[in-house]
Parts: sequence; structure tokens; C-alpha cells
Amino acid sequence: MAQMGTASAPLAACCDIGGTKALVGFVDPEGRILAQDRYLLGSQREPQQMVAELAARLRSLSARSGLAWERVAGLGYSTAGMMDVESGVIFASPNQGAWRDVPFKALLREAVGVPAWIEMDANAAALGEAWKGAGAGAEHFIYVVVGTGIGSGILVRGQVLRGHRGTAGEIGHTTIEPDGPLCNCGNYGCLEALAAGPAIALRAQGAILQGRRTQIEALAGGQGVTAEVVVQAARLGDEVAQDVLARTAGYIGIGLANVITLLSPEVIALGGGVMRGAGDLLLEPIRREVARRCGSWVDVQSRRILLSTLWEEAGLLGAARLVWNSVGSG
Amino acid sequence: MAQMGTASAPLAACCDIGGTKALVGFVDPEGRILAQDRYLLGSQREPQQMVAELAARLRSLSARSGLAWERVAGLGYSTAGMMDVESGVIFASPNQGAWRDVPFKALLREAVGVPAWIEMDANAAALGEAWKGAGAGAEHFIYVVVGTGIGSGILVRGQVLRGHRGTAGEIGHTTIEPDGPLCNCGNYGCLEALAAGPAIALRAQGAILQGRRTQIEALAGGQGVTAEVVVQAARLGDEVAQDVLARTAGYIGIGLANVITLLSPEVIALGGGVMRGAGDLLLEPIRREVARRCGSWVDVQSRRILLSTLWEEAGLLGAARLVWNSVGSG
Repeated sequence: MAQMGTASAPLAACCDIGGTKALVGFVDPEGRILAQDRYLLGSQREPQQMVAELAARLRSLSARSGLAWERVAGLGYSTAGMMDVESGVIFASPNQGAWRDVPFKALLREAVGVPAWIEMDANAAALGEAWKGAGAGAEHFIYVVVGTGIGSGILVRGQVLRGHRGTAGEIGHTTIEPDGPLCNCGNYGCLEALAAGPAIALRAQGAILQGRRTQIEALAGGQGVTAEVVVQAARLGDEVAQDVLARTAGYIGIGLANVITLLSPEVIALGGGVMRGAGDLLLEPIRREVARRCGSWVDVQSRRILLSTLWEEAGLLGAARLVWNSVGSG
Repeated sequence: MAQMGTASAPLAACCDIGGTKALVGFVDPEGRILAQDRYLLGSQREPQQMVAELAARLRSLSARSGLAWERVAGLGYSTAGMMDVESGVIFASPNQGAWRDVPFKALLREAVGVPAWIEMDANAAALGEAWKGAGAGAEHFIYVVVGTGIGSGILVRGQVLRGHRGTAGEIGHTTIEPDGPLCNCGNYGCLEALAAGPAIALRAQGAILQGRRTQIEALAGGQGVTAEVVVQAARLGDEVAQDVLARTAGYIGIGLANVITLLSPEVIALGGGVMRGAGDLLLEPIRREVARRCGSWVDVQSRRILLSTLWEEAGLLGAARLVWNSVGSG
């Protein structure tokens, strides 16, 4: 009988759109992912096509998983881009091409047939981690994603901090070194330009050009130096690679110390590809830099800096949270 | 008859405690300061003595101003220090000496005979400016005080952002130059160590020691170089002094750009002694640095960076706001 109850409980349909692939799934009100699937995104990404494919993928997953479509209470959708989550309009979504002012929430609702909510990917991941991951129980929580870029989602008393025009949370574009390297955004010395994956690779290439003895180039095998190769070399004891990661951790530590000094979160969770691949090497040096940088009043022992526990699923759970925050959980 | 109505309207008793002096006053529900007074704080500052003197000063001011004490609905109290505004306990208040865990709200209530609320000075000033000053109408507002130190009060949807353990808002201790000068807090390259009054004086002294030609020393007249003298020299066309202020503005601009990137305020107001004395020289270079540092998505044209309009009265009005936010305005 308990199973019958569960089998008729409402479901949140969820979608987390990345740069090249989509993760979709169904999540129950307790935050259990009952089914999930991923698919590659085509290179042509018209909004109408994207929502049609999403609807088809969700329907197919529900059928394959024995989850009756009638149980779906709503759809949560997480993606990169600039958007107004209230009206559901995506102003721009760099990964998807030249979108301008797309009424995405309405398109989703029409294609999927249930109420829909959208959220910026870092905010959705923050909501997911705060619900079922590293941030569970923290009123003031920040999720930082370190991958090809660096972004963050900030929760204040559990609510996404958006600020004027919704542009809050771009920790990756805070200036850490005023005369540092040029960032994609046009500024110099942004955290992203100093500590994201490409910056790790660039720093290693710089050391190679300076003639330092390192296995990094050999490990790259003519494929070009990447952050992954640097991490691999560091694990093999390569000193240059270890120096590169130590500097990277130092910059991330400064960025987090600034965030703690300004916003005073209780918990910061670190996710994204770089942290997934090298979090065990980076976490302690990051914590040391934060402790070194924060004033005594911060009581740094009362703050937790943790790795993500949900990783790729953070966005999916956050997307579900959008649904349950709006429709209730039945 | 209208006057009779006004004469019986409730009043907020207010107090803003600085490093050496106190500002007290009475403010009506519309934010008009009906009377104010200031007095020097003695060097012995026991909590009991301080609240007794405050109560006497307020009673005397009310009598002298013809404002019936019976109209006082509550007391708002703004001061530097670490405190829990809910319980009203001041954990530490560096300006007042070696206070530890003083139940200040209760002491105030006992001495003054009306309900009392306490707030950290930068937060109170932010509430004041957001009510009747440069931040009026802004949902997301930050007040930054640049004086002997640098602090800030952050309002998110009109509410003070406190964070875990109430330590949010210390913009002065965000790192701007990782290898910059040692700050009082123990960190290196904090905004305060680069751009507060003492840092301006130190930068000028450094230029003098380097042998640069400047009138600063002559203007100081053997009294030691201060930020005031540097500003005076800059107004007389002294290039060294102008360089010193330009670098100061650059650092403040980086700090504000980081805050905008993270928190996305609509308005930032700049107060404090340095801004009072040199705001006209600093404001445009600060705005230029902010525009240079912020990514295009920030839409920097939609942000306003302004000088305080209330100056010393910001804290007093913020203290009044504490009362009206809690008891209503009658």
C-alpha cells in the first residue's frame, strides 16, 4: 500500500542544459531522482526545436521508467544565460546561439503541457545542493562551479540572491589581481581568468615556455596541455603541475575569502569539472588561503568549505526544487 | 490644528555613537529630524555610564526642544561593534574599550524607559540613506563608508544582509591586491589598507620618501601628513597628491566593481570622512574604474554610484528606521 502511495505521488520533471548535453529526469517531493537520462544537444538550437526534443525525451523516459506522465506536476529547467525567471524570458543564452528575448517558460509549458519554471544554472545547482547536498541545513549558502568558467549561486535565507536586473552571483568575474591576465569578459585578473580550467592549462604552458622541467608536455602527448593533464601530472608528483594547482587554489581561496567577508555564508560548496577532477588536491590549500585572508571576526572555523556532493545532479535537483517551491509537494 | 496633530505624533529617539562623539536626536515617522545634539564621549566608557548619560542627554534635548517625552515610541541605537541585533547583546565594541557580551538593548530600555533596538553603524547608515538619502527607492542598495576605516551596509530587498553570525558587509576587508600592504586585520591588500584615510596618507608619505616633488610636506607644516592635507594639495594642483587620489579611487572602484559583480546593487552610496572631504575629486574616477571592471551583462549604466546625501545624519535616520520598522509609525 505504501508503494501505491509512492506510485501516485507527484513528480517534478527536470532538465539541466549544459554546453553540449542535456540531463533530464523525474524527481519526487523528497528529492529522490526516480529516473534520469542524458542526450547530446544538436548544433542547431532553435528554441522551438529544443523544447520539442525535451518534451519527447521526457515522455519517452516516463514511459520507459513506468512513471505515469499524469503524475508530473511541473517542469523545472536549468540553463546558462541571462533571463528573467519571473516572466520566464531568456534574454540571451550564449551556449544556445543567438537567442534574443525568448519567452521560454511559455514555450516549455506549451510543449510539455505542465507549468514550467526556469532558473540560471548556477542558481539551480545552489538550490539543489542546499536541498539535498553539501549545503543542506545552511541558511546562507553559496555554490561555486569551477570548470571551463567560474560561476556561483548565492542563497540568502534559502532564497536566490538576484539583485538589480538579476545579475548577482558572478564570482568568476570579481577582480583578484588588478593587473592579471585578460578575461573573456574584457576585465583583467578576474577569478575565472586565473583559476578556471583554461587558466590552469595556460599557467602550465607558461611554465613550460619558461623551460621548467615537467612531464606535463609528455603526458599531453601532442594533444595540447589541458587542466586534466596538469592534474594528472600533479598526481604523479610533477612539481610544476603541483605549483600550478597551488597557485590556482590560492586564487580561488582569495575569491572565496572575499565572498565570505562580504556575504558571510555558513557553507560554500565547490562543484564543476575542475573540482570534480582535482577537488581532493585543491580543497585543503583553498581552505588555508581562506583562513589566512579572513579577519578574526569571521570565525572561520564556523564556516564549511566543501566539495559538492551532488555534482552533475545538483542542477537536476535544483530544477525539481523550482517545481516544489511553486506548486507545493502534494 | 494640523500642528497639534504633528505635536502629538510619535517620535523615535535616536543615537549614533562614533569613535569620539555621540549624535542624538528625535525623528518623526516621516523621517524629519525635529531636534538633534552632539556630545563628546568620555574616555571611561562603562556600559551603565554610557546609557545613563544618553538617557540624560535625550531627556534634556526633549525638554529644550519642546518635544514631550511621552511621544517617544522607542529608541534606535547605532554603534560600531559586533552584536546580535535580535537579542541586543554587544559582543565587542572596539571604540568603547574592553566590552564583552553586554546586554545593551536591555540596559538601554531600562535607562531610557522605552523599547530599544540596536544596529551596527554601517547598517544603520545604509537604512538611513535608503530611507531618506541617496538610496531612496532602491531595492538593492549598498552604503560604503570611507573614513579611518572602510565598512559597508548591504540591503537586499530593503533588508540588512547579515549572513551567518552577522558578519556580512565588510567590504573594507576584501582583498584587492593579494600582495598589497598589511592591513590592521592581519590580511594583505585589503581595500581598507589601500584606500582608507591612513592609506592615503601613507601613499603620500611613500611618494615623499621617493623624493617626488610635492607641496604635501610643506602643507602638513610639521604636523604629519594626513589624508586631509593630501586632498588640500590635490586641490592646489599638486600632481603627487592627485596621483595618490587617483590610485585610491582606482582601488575603491575595484572594490565596488567586485561588489556589483557579486551582489548587483542598483545604487551604491559613498559616505564617511574621506568622501565628505574629497568625494568630488574621487567620484568620477571611481565610476570609470567600475565601468572598466564590470562585465557587459552588468549594464553599468543602470547602476548609480553616488555620494551620501545625509552624511552624519544617515546613522541617526537609520536608528529612527529601526524604531519605525518595529513599532510601526503610529
